[in-house]
Amino acid sequence: MRDFSLNHECLSINTATVRKSNGMDLPLPKIIEACVERGIGAISPWRDQVTAAGLSVVSKLVKSHGLKLSGYCRGGMFPAVDSQATQAAELDNRMAVDEACELNAQCLVLVVGGLPGALDGKAAHKDIARSRHQVHDGIAQLLSYAKSCHMPLAIEPLHPMYAADRACINTLEQALDVCDALDPDQSGALGVAVDVYHVWWDPKLQQQIERAGKSRLLAFHVCDWLTPTTDMLNDRGMMGDGVIDIPKIRGWVEAQGFSGFSEVEIFSTGNWWQRDHSHVLDTCIARHKSFV
Amino acid sequence: MRDFSLNHECLSINTATVRKSNGMDLPLPKIIEACVERGIGAISPWRDQVTAAGLSVVSKLVKSHGLKLSGYCRGGMFPAVDSQATQAAELDNRMAVDEACELNAQCLVLVVGGLPGALDGKAAHKDIARSRHQVHDGIAQLLSYAKSCHMPLAIEPLHPMYAADRACINTLEQALDVCDALDPDQSGALGVAVDVYHVWWDPKLQQQIERAGKSRLLAFHVCDWLTPTTDMLNDRGMMGDGVIDIPKIRGWVEAQGFSGFSEVEIFSTGNWWQRDHSHVLDTCIARHKSFV
Repeated sequence: MRDFSLNHECLSINTATVRKSNGMDLPLPKIIEACVERGIGAISPWRDQVTAAGLSVVSKLVKSHGLKLSGYCRGGMFPAVDSQATQAAELDNRMAVDEACELNAQCLVLVVGGLPGALDGKAAHKDIARSRHQVHDGIAQLLSYAKSCHMPLAIEPLHPMYAADRACINTLEQALDVCDALDPDQSGALGVAVDVYHVWWDPKLQQQIERAGKSRLLAFHVCDWLTPTTDMLNDRGMMGDGVIDIPKIRGWVEAQGFSGFSEVEIFSTGNWWQRDHSHVLDTCIARHKSFV
Repeated sequence: MRDFSLNHECLSINTATVRKSNGMDLPLPKIIEACVERGIGAISPWRDQVTAAGLSVVSKLVKSHGLKLSGYCRGGMFPAVDSQATQAAELDNRMAVDEACELNAQCLVLVVGGLPGALDGKAAHKDIARSRHQVHDGIAQLLSYAKSCHMPLAIEPLHPMYAADRACINTLEQALDVCDALDPDQSGALGVAVDVYHVWWDPKLQQQIERAGKSRLLAFHVCDWLTPTTDMLNDRGMMGDGVIDIPKIRGWVEAQGFSGFSEVEIFSTGNWWQRDHSHVLDTCIARHKSFV
């Protein structure tokens, strides 16, 4: 297992972590600048942040600073109510692949979607099996495009509490079943993003990480689970402030040969997004050394 | 599959559902009275409510009205930091078995506990595997006592969002693994409580319900999953107000021969606990007929 206490060369910052500084929106170029200043060598930006700053601007910044992208957030949201919506999702996902390519991301992260409409509080139906079929079909179709662009797709199983509105792939086992069905040769074109927040509770986690193996482990995300958690989306904890034994999970992932970045992804309306981003990034570096 | 539209003879009210009426505590005898008035033939009371009213008082009420108990809530909370705390949990769980016997409950529901201290925001450790071992051992020990009293134990897998603070058994598969280990003969002494709120998201739900079979299916709880869910504990929905396809899951359970009650268990600080319990119970009856 790698020794993270020495430096932070394996640290990546998911840019949602410093989406806000002192409660105010922080533009992506400012985030990049602050990361570069601290010798942080990798980021994982969100599409809305890239769009706001301009893809070509971000691409130039990333290249001029020699930044790596541990991933690009995000494609997915496959389930749809009709063929028009399905087609719109397809097009949008191809654009996400294109952007990921332009930024030379290591993978495009897929948050696959749940029941259509549920995110707006109006689920179109209650048939989660139907959504899961649509996700399967959507990934299958996107995969052929992504393969032609040499952009790996990383299915991110989301915590079961997001099954209705964000992602109906909720365990690593389920994600790997999709990988096995669509990429039986383990070509590296399709794999998983393991985010400790989503999977730490899973009694089959170690077993399924071993099943995934190096070829399927495309990304590793960290933060912490707070007790109590006061908001289901935006109350993630800084590593060390919660109950997840992150080094244990990292050990399992690295035992499979994973040698990528540890990407810090924290959504925190009430705490970290209220603080100055300099402090947040410095804390990420410190906690990466001691709690990841 | 049974036709629930005809009457509500298969309805049970978990008394937490009307724990409060118009925001005020409603004592268990009042709850029982209101259920009896409506021809509700079964309840599932909580220990704190029974203690507040007095076990013998409740026992007499239950018997004089011919009420059945679809379950008794609850035993469990096995993980502990030291042998003293372990012993205290043991004694308390035996008392819960005794009370369940006195009330002639069909099973004692087990919410097994998570990381000790996490419920108070101060987890004593991060080793969920250790907690799971303690749960296994705790159930094993309680089972021999419960068997001697002929009181079935129903392990309730709780939603993974409660893994840290309430229960580290989080899927039906995991609960059944414990059942298979501790009661390989499927004697009926150990089984599961299937609460749709906790398990609806599980891609292996149908498969594991089939695995459980009649002998392990000791209780069936219903409510609904709201989008959005604004509180992780106390924002459960009334059947029909959320995204769970309850009849589908009931169909799977009944296909195994389950013929017990559908127990309505709703924790709802902001909505149902603010309403008059008469209205809540009438709504439970109506929704039981149309959405369960």
